[in-house]
Amino acid sequence: MRKTAVAIVGWGNVGRACKRAISECSDMYLAGVVRRASSLKTEDPTLENTVVVSDIKELGDVDVALLCIPSREVPQRIREYHAMGINTVDSFDEHHRIVSLRRELDVSAKVKKTVSIIGAGWDPGTDSLIRALMKVVSLTGHTTTTFGGNKGGRSMGHTVQVKSIAGVKDAVALTLANGRGKQKRKVYVELEKGADITAIEKAILADDYFKNEPTEIMVVKSIDKYNTLQHSAEIERTGMQANQMYSVSGNNPEFTANIMVSSVRACINAYNKEDYGVYTFIERPIIDYLAGNSLDDKLEGY
Amino acid sequence: MRKTAVAIVGWGNVGRACKRAISECSDMYLAGVVRRASSLKTEDPTLENTVVVSDIKELGDVDVALLCIPSREVPQRIREYHAMGINTVDSFDEHHRIVSLRRELDVSAKVKKTVSIIGAGWDPGTDSLIRALMKVVSLTGHTTTTFGGNKGGRSMGHTVQVKSIAGVKDAVALTLANGRGKQKRKVYVELEKGADITAIEKAILADDYFKNEPTEIMVVKSIDKYNTLQHSAEIERTGMQANQMYSVSGNNPEFTANIMVSSVRACINAYNKEDYGVYTFIERPIIDYLAGNSLDDKLEGY
Repeated sequence: MRKTAVAIVGWGNVGRACKRAISECSDMYLAGVVRRASSLKTEDPTLENTVVVSDIKELGDVDVALLCIPSREVPQRIREYHAMGINTVDSFDEHHRIVSLRRELDVSAKVKKTVSIIGAGWDPGTDSLIRALMKVVSLTGHTTTTFGGNKGGRSMGHTVQVKSIAGVKDAVALTLANGRGKQKRKVYVELEKGADITAIEKAILADDYFKNEPTEIMVVKSIDKYNTLQHSAEIERTGMQANQMYSVSGNNPEFTANIMVSSVRACINAYNKEDYGVYTFIERPIIDYLAGNSLDDKLEGY
Repeated sequence: MRKTAVAIVGWGNVGRACKRAISECSDMYLAGVVRRASSLKTEDPTLENTVVVSDIKELGDVDVALLCIPSREVPQRIREYHAMGINTVDSFDEHHRIVSLRRELDVSAKVKKTVSIIGAGWDPGTDSLIRALMKVVSLTGHTTTTFGGNKGGRSMGHTVQVKSIAGVKDAVALTLANGRGKQKRKVYVELEKGADITAIEKAILADDYFKNEPTEIMVVKSIDKYNTLQHSAEIERTGMQANQMYSVSGNNPEFTANIMVSSVRACINAYNKEDYGVYTFIERPIIDYLAGNSLDDKLEGY
């Protein structure tokens, strides 16, 4: 079987973790990494023996591009890659925009004969699948998702957003449980010289990522001691016929990367069946995300 | 949208629970119940206002038959119903036979243009999907499933098997945790007059359902005080990038019925797409199991 050629687009925490995840999968290989032209000259020992380009066209045939860029840049990048006939996987994280994004991009994907799996991270993504499955087990009931527990976890989307604000030198945005099914944010910000903290606070609190949850902002000299890559979630469904609980905890970019890389398979499976279009994580059969050459492989431990 | 006509085949605990579950679903209705001819005359207040027949043909058009019969009768019944052009859903529970059953029946399903979802209970079934999903989140790792906890839970398949042995008047087979990822069985048996307990014990211990786990058999005057409908499972995956846990507990026939009835939707969705064939639970997209008329409905709370 031909191996799938995968490109990593963006070289942040998730992009790096995707490289590790691809190396664990014998059915695909890393064709190269796409970075901003301005970053190409940066020395980076983790990119040794890796082709690094600023335009995906330079990589030749790429079956699937893993979009490891900020969520807000994802829609435009999908459009560009679809126009080139390249399939994509991303972990777009704005829940309320997923359905409209899927609808909008699905049209051109079908014309261009490409496939995208969008929102293929953990939440939205695998957690969404858990929530759907819990409804199947208990038709009536109430589901809550609680992030971060008492210690809090680093939200990648929120952190990237704060870092993009002018005057912010570095930042980490934590999500903490705030009672069952509710959360609050703690943002640690390291400022550039002469930065206007009032304007920065205003920009954070007005942003879609923060405006619906209690958010505490703290200016610190260095974010080092507040930084972490850990995160966690707990999903509970109480119902008439059954109670269910699912929890996940670990290194956020690492397990996000696992999910994205597994989604490469679902993407290629859809492409090979000519099921062109844009799909959320729960719209493809879970068997299509698994490694293995045969039904027996994939159903092992079923 | 036309409602799906569903038949319940078998009127044990799961069949009864399926009636309740169907009544919660506005997209389907109960066309009738199929029972053994010898049971048709039995008075049963739970069957009031319900059409009861001994041959499914008497019900007219049935879209999907829910096979609520012992697992070992399932393969033959699927064959019969496929020949009549009727789609089926079951909760066949013999893990090691699922892949071969799927392969074997898939051929004739494609010829007869029917769809079956097999093993659509909780284990195999929704637990299998959880195990698959956990592999996606953590590519490397170790997964264990522990059933019944310390108190134990009533296994339906095991109980049905013991009850089918000559000389057994009534029985309940419990599954208890026996350390992480391992289980043991406790079987309470009420005997017919003059029954040969040595032969019964031999029959239990030699059966595929019991032969691989420590099994304790106790003869009791009445199983009433040992009986329960509760069961539970805990699935854990520890891995390099993440730890995950899923637990489910509740009324076994009731949540099994929820899963089977949700699978009616996946069955009809496959049928409408002309994806004829036999599928395990994880081979159809989870979105196809959900209620709702639109993508927005189904992705609500995504």
